[in-house]
Amino acid sequence: MSSFGKRATGAFSGEVAPAAVLCEQPTLNKFMLLGPDAWSSLRLALSRALRQGAGHEERVRASLLPQAKAEFALAAAISGYTDFYTSVHHATAVGKLFRPDNPLLPNYKWVPIGYHGRVSSIGVSGQAFHRPRAQVLPQGESVPVVAPSRRLDCELELGIFIGTGNRLGRPIPIGEAEKHVFGITLLNDWSARDVQPWEYQPLGPFLSKNFATTLSPWVVTLEALAPYRVARVRPQTDPQPLPYLDSPADRSEGAFDIELEVLIETAAMRAKGEAPVSLAHSNYRHAYWTIAQLVAHHTINGCNLAPGDLFGTGTLSGPNPDEAGSLIELTAGGKQPLKLRNGEERTFLEDGDAIVLRGWCARAGRPRVGFGEVTGVVLPALEG
Amino acid sequence: MSSFGKRATGAFSGEVAPAAVLCEQPTLNKFMLLGPDAWSSLRLALSRALRQGAGHEERVRASLLPQAKAEFALAAAISGYTDFYTSVHHATAVGKLFRPDNPLLPNYKWVPIGYHGRVSSIGVSGQAFHRPRAQVLPQGESVPVVAPSRRLDCELELGIFIGTGNRLGRPIPIGEAEKHVFGITLLNDWSARDVQPWEYQPLGPFLSKNFATTLSPWVVTLEALAPYRVARVRPQTDPQPLPYLDSPADRSEGAFDIELEVLIETAAMRAKGEAPVSLAHSNYRHAYWTIAQLVAHHTINGCNLAPGDLFGTGTLSGPNPDEAGSLIELTAGGKQPLKLRNGEERTFLEDGDAIVLRGWCARAGRPRVGFGEVTGVVLPALEG
Repeated sequence: MSSFGKRATGAFSGEVAPAAVLCEQPTLNKFMLLGPDAWSSLRLALSRALRQGAGHEERVRASLLPQAKAEFALAAAISGYTDFYTSVHHATAVGKLFRPDNPLLPNYKWVPIGYHGRVSSIGVSGQAFHRPRAQVLPQGESVPVVAPSRRLDCELELGIFIGTGNRLGRPIPIGEAEKHVFGITLLNDWSARDVQPWEYQPLGPFLSKNFATTLSPWVVTLEALAPYRVARVRPQTDPQPLPYLDSPADRSEGAFDIELEVLIETAAMRAKGEAPVSLAHSNYRHAYWTIAQLVAHHTINGCNLAPGDLFGTGTLSGPNPDEAGSLIELTAGGKQPLKLRNGEERTFLEDGDAIVLRGWCARAGRPRVGFGEVTGVVLPALEG
Repeated sequence: MSSFGKRATGAFSGEVAPAAVLCEQPTLNKFMLLGPDAWSSLRLALSRALRQGAGHEERVRASLLPQAKAEFALAAAISGYTDFYTSVHHATAVGKLFRPDNPLLPNYKWVPIGYHGRVSSIGVSGQAFHRPRAQVLPQGESVPVVAPSRRLDCELELGIFIGTGNRLGRPIPIGEAEKHVFGITLLNDWSARDVQPWEYQPLGPFLSKNFATTLSPWVVTLEALAPYRVARVRPQTDPQPLPYLDSPADRSEGAFDIELEVLIETAAMRAKGEAPVSLAHSNYRHAYWTIAQLVAHHTINGCNLAPGDLFGTGTLSGPNPDEAGSLIELTAGGKQPLKLRNGEERTFLEDGDAIVLRGWCARAGRPRVGFGEVTGVVLPALEG
């Protein structure tokens, strides 16, 4: 769902009219604030209006714009951005590269690990950004240098938009958590893997992440994803979640079966008009922590959420090594280059590379749900 | 400087009138955007108008409000918040508690360490917040529990407001950095010391910090602090900063001589009408990284800053143990209780405790500059 042009909203009357009017604004924040009943009512009205043969064709046609003519924008003014780390497979794979004997830290299966990210550099699909320069410590050296990142990576994530928030000091219980969630979008968390190890102790990633984050303009509401709910992942041999992170509904249907794909389009492919090639497939159902658990955890200490807050899921790698959502995993830390179909090789991203993330839900007998795609392009570093 | 009421701005005419009009808004963000020449012109006009005997008494009097009648607010709508770690004394003291043999990490003297903080829970002086509940790992246990923090702490910091930003991808050189800085305020970075060690690996502090941060409503511009500029701290035996973090001006006058104090007012003191008692004094001149270095570092990778962005300096502990800006340092990790003047003892904060931070500049022959104070109060934890 994205915001409508002004002429669209006249198509709705009755109880959904006020919600439709709020969607005329450049961002959906005020519509988000209305809460899940209003989101649901407008979705139903939209669905009816767009159904063929419903007799609304004339009224609706005037409100429609060809997708190719639309200028896409971020769905919301993002008030806060928190990136999580919900794939145990990603956490283990990356942990192995840094700590072969102790890949997964002892807090991982208890705490939905997250940290605050940078809002200002979040852009919408199509974002082009310069390869970042920053301090790195060359291997075997003790004196750092400033250089363009040579280990620039993508991260296949989903973004979760918070629709309604909570008062400071008032946690959101897990049973209420999903009512606060507006919907899900695609998110690419660009990462400079050579900057990260030198800067991240003891306060976490900073310049290695805050130069660009790219979001899809499309947001799919949780209601639309209801046919794709599945049980959450939590092996019986693992510690079970603390009570504030647990509920029967979260256990039985707290996860979502969303297919994910990351693709690359190099400058050479683009020049020849070749389609992007796939780097990996994954699925959101493998995430160790559910959306409701992230909301409950983020607010257990009283931290307040607001309409337009964004959560990142963290890189959504699946259980098999070829289901990894980042190049650092797919290339064993840059040691095993990937051979692309056109003969090119990649360890990390080269200038001119575009990364495309796609998501969709599709099972026999259920309506297909598409997330569209999010694309971002790496431009050469600027002169230092 | 805080925003004016509407009736104030009629007192200004000529080139400063547009700037004064922007100060009628509830936040100073639009005024900040005007840049340092406008800030300086309005400061001069204000100073002239308020000077006794300048003949402006009548015009100005109508615009003034007794401080006791003013309702204070945050000076800006904070767009992003980054907390740094600029005191080498704090980093070393806290590092010693966690890693006695290796207190200061090897990146500290090269990288101005920082991380993104939470904007939504930042409040203005007078903020009262409930003691946070969160996951903690009891000593000697392997299974965490959710409990109210028992090691709740304050952090004596300064806040730095960014006035004008930069375009994504365009770093701010250190020689230009201070032109982007609007001014300095007092900041208390409340911290739950028992939550932090369990959650902070590998992505940094999260729930241990994001439940509350308290700012003074007063912002002092860098121009007003010119008489208190001093050479930055950097022993010759330390590695010298990389070129992007170095300039002759930063070396000779990049630091500020600002006196700082942290005080406590317990519920018992308040009941008896006793004044807050001092816990420690410190001075901003001891910071290892200057404001210009923080701006240059934050943007070296192209990250974009905006008017109303806030930096925290990190806890501003001085070189002597009694100049520490947090209870974890003053009590050796909670092992050596502080005896207060009224006979009470404290390791960490108790319910009802208020913490007051004060700042000022004062040297013989120079104008005194006050930062006012920032106060925050700990309320009991809510029922879980």
